[in-house]
Amino acid sequence: MAERPTRPSASRRPVFDVTDDRLARAAWSRIAEPGDDVAVALVEQLGAGPALAWLHEAVDDPAEARRTLVARSETVPTSGPTRGVGLAGPVPEDPSGDGASHDARSRSVARLLRGVARWAPRLDGLDPRRELRVLERLGGTLVVPGDPGWPGALADLGAAVPIALWVRGAPGLAGLAARSVAVVGARACTDYGRHVTGEIASGVAARGFTVVSGGAYGIDAAAHRAALVSGGPTVAFLAGGVDRLYPAGNTDLLRAVVETGGAVVSEVPPGSVPSRVRFLQRNRLIAAFSGATVVVEAAWRSGSLSTATRATELSRPVGAVPGPVTSMASTGCHRLLRDGAAVCVTDADEVAELAGSLTRDAAPGAPPVAGGASRRADYDGLDGVETRAWDALPLRSGAPTDAVARSAGLAVADAMSALGRLEVRGLAERTAGGWRRVRPG
Amino acid sequence: MAERPTRPSASRRPVFDVTDDRLARAAWSRIAEPGDDVAVALVEQLGAGPALAWLHEAVDDPAEARRTLVARSETVPTSGPTRGVGLAGPVPEDPSGDGASHDARSRSVARLLRGVARWAPRLDGLDPRRELRVLERLGGTLVVPGDPGWPGALADLGAAVPIALWVRGAPGLAGLAARSVAVVGARACTDYGRHVTGEIASGVAARGFTVVSGGAYGIDAAAHRAALVSGGPTVAFLAGGVDRLYPAGNTDLLRAVVETGGAVVSEVPPGSVPSRVRFLQRNRLIAAFSGATVVVEAAWRSGSLSTATRATELSRPVGAVPGPVTSMASTGCHRLLRDGAAVCVTDADEVAELAGSLTRDAAPGAPPVAGGASRRADYDGLDGVETRAWDALPLRSGAPTDAVARSAGLAVADAMSALGRLEVRGLAERTAGGWRRVRPG
Repeated sequence: MAERPTRPSASRRPVFDVTDDRLARAAWSRIAEPGDDVAVALVEQLGAGPALAWLHEAVDDPAEARRTLVARSETVPTSGPTRGVGLAGPVPEDPSGDGASHDARSRSVARLLRGVARWAPRLDGLDPRRELRVLERLGGTLVVPGDPGWPGALADLGAAVPIALWVRGAPGLAGLAARSVAVVGARACTDYGRHVTGEIASGVAARGFTVVSGGAYGIDAAAHRAALVSGGPTVAFLAGGVDRLYPAGNTDLLRAVVETGGAVVSEVPPGSVPSRVRFLQRNRLIAAFSGATVVVEAAWRSGSLSTATRATELSRPVGAVPGPVTSMASTGCHRLLRDGAAVCVTDADEVAELAGSLTRDAAPGAPPVAGGASRRADYDGLDGVETRAWDALPLRSGAPTDAVARSAGLAVADAMSALGRLEVRGLAERTAGGWRRVRPG
Repeated sequence: MAERPTRPSASRRPVFDVTDDRLARAAWSRIAEPGDDVAVALVEQLGAGPALAWLHEAVDDPAEARRTLVARSETVPTSGPTRGVGLAGPVPEDPSGDGASHDARSRSVARLLRGVARWAPRLDGLDPRRELRVLERLGGTLVVPGDPGWPGALADLGAAVPIALWVRGAPGLAGLAARSVAVVGARACTDYGRHVTGEIASGVAARGFTVVSGGAYGIDAAAHRAALVSGGPTVAFLAGGVDRLYPAGNTDLLRAVVETGGAVVSEVPPGSVPSRVRFLQRNRLIAAFSGATVVVEAAWRSGSLSTATRATELSRPVGAVPGPVTSMASTGCHRLLRDGAAVCVTDADEVAELAGSLTRDAAPGAPPVAGGASRRADYDGLDGVETRAWDALPLRSGAPTDAVARSAGLAVADAMSALGRLEVRGLAERTAGGWRRVRPG
């Protein structure tokens, strides 16, 4: 122990109560970049507070931390959403005896130590109480898993679930997500794109959908604005802290979003700058939060295409609005259509149809969901096509097969056979009006 | 026989040599409306001349014709493309002994007698030599099955195959069809539609494709015109006779089509007027003749959508060009995209890709194909998805799975499994460059 170099550990000791889950999650949302699955796994396995305490220990004494880790790594799970990372849980089997799980443990220890290296610089002067005070002054709320307002749909992100959400405006995000559509697109949009966005966003807002977007110039701003005009709530996910309503030109618009029953949301704390990687990570939140994602205009390589891709990965319906083939601003949308990655949508009715049937069970009071293991039980074991068909099923009145197929973005034949399989599993039933979902008993 | 009423049979006796297949087919193309599957079956079963002779007999003595028919109806086939109509061929089995095939025979006799009732009025003054002289004066050619110029792809129409084609311009339709794209759309097109049509048609013409269309105002005219400007041949299928280049405003354009290596084609003889039903039947010829069909602009209910539907039924790839959702002229295209009935195409490259892989084996000298039974053997037993995948396979250099999927308009997963099944059947093979067709040995 004598050869251990002296470290400036005093300034790193937590100045706040790390046993407070809310404070600890606020701290982690500053320490870890959005989408840091190692941090999520650590928080899920140990709890946010103990994870933070462990991180402090690890920074104070890396050698000891490594030894502890190797000793405790017997308990690293080799499967499940936090595989290869955990510090608790059952000892993994190694029936083959070939050392495969030993190798997996070594890799997970290495990943965790790399995490410590990433996180350590951000421990200096860490005090989430300060950021929470900033949020409070702005009338905001920190929403964490377990809160009634936590949007359960984010659980579909698995190990990329956000650790906490910094919210200005309505903290009941679950209610806002329950019936929602993301309307996204190019910053450099055309008058055509702005016009169509207005028609679609105001139309779906009038039908009771929350319009979700990214608060950017162009299509995003047109979507928020049209929703506000229709009196519907709208939610903007920002890449930076909610204290700075970015971009500056949209400050008044975003303030109106906050003051009209909607919310401006970020997973990074006040004071955080919007970086390129944060923009991309922000897109996953839009995709996961919303019942469906519609791209109105997008250039060939556009960030909004990443939102569409994430939505597809999450089995959310994706729509694309066509435009003139002579317009560069529509090339990304046409690419989605051509690749079969999006359904062609041309008005609010079609967008509502796309999103309507996927009303997620994310109402206030839903059980807390935070990690990746919380996908609803009736989903378990469904393949991609079955999941899409199930998602597309209405809860009450039945829908004919072709409507389910259209809504799910499936060929009618595929939808038909998937519905048959869902029926066999007791997840779907035929009524006079068509197919509907069976709620698990 | 004494009670048989005297009929004005003298004027109905054929004034030409009905044993001349060409003359008899020319006559039938006047007697029967386009798409009259009873006439096609009769011509296929008996030959055009004997069928005509039988029709004369039947008109002269309907009671005797019915008796003959009932006696001969033992030979009506109950399956195959001419089921329930034929007057020759093997005696059908009736193993159940429940009279099912007797019923089928009764129905087929009834259908045939209804056909006689339709056809009889057109026997008065029938003389196809007159119409052939008109065609000859216009420099045209009658093309019938068995001619080297006969486009074999039309065989896919089955019992709706045309009995003969009246052609002005190049009689080598098989060569024109071999690498061809139909570019069709609304008469009431917009400047946008006209512009995009020009880009696409000139682009595919420059790549060696024959541009096929309907000779109408709007998109059709723009397609023919752009092909001519690019120096490529273009083919116009008319709903009326080729003596009247309809519509009048396109006379100069259609004359240029004839004089520039292309052709103006109709299945009805000179002097025939274009009727609504003939326009719809004409669309099936465009769909069957062409390697792919692209709709550039179409209103919600547009005739060009019927061309797209026919093309889909014939397993031909269909493309639709998107446009502004604010334009009524694009609603039909968006409908096709939304229904998954068309691939989104935005330029000549994408159209060429759509059509290129389906180059039909319709070169001059292909074996005569006329009825519905001539679908190539290696097609037999393939399901819809397999057929589309097979159609999309290149003959020489291989194509990667995703290119095949795109070309076939299939999901990649579906294309992959279909290709696997085709491989098992020896119809497709993997090469270094990807998948290609195996020609049956």
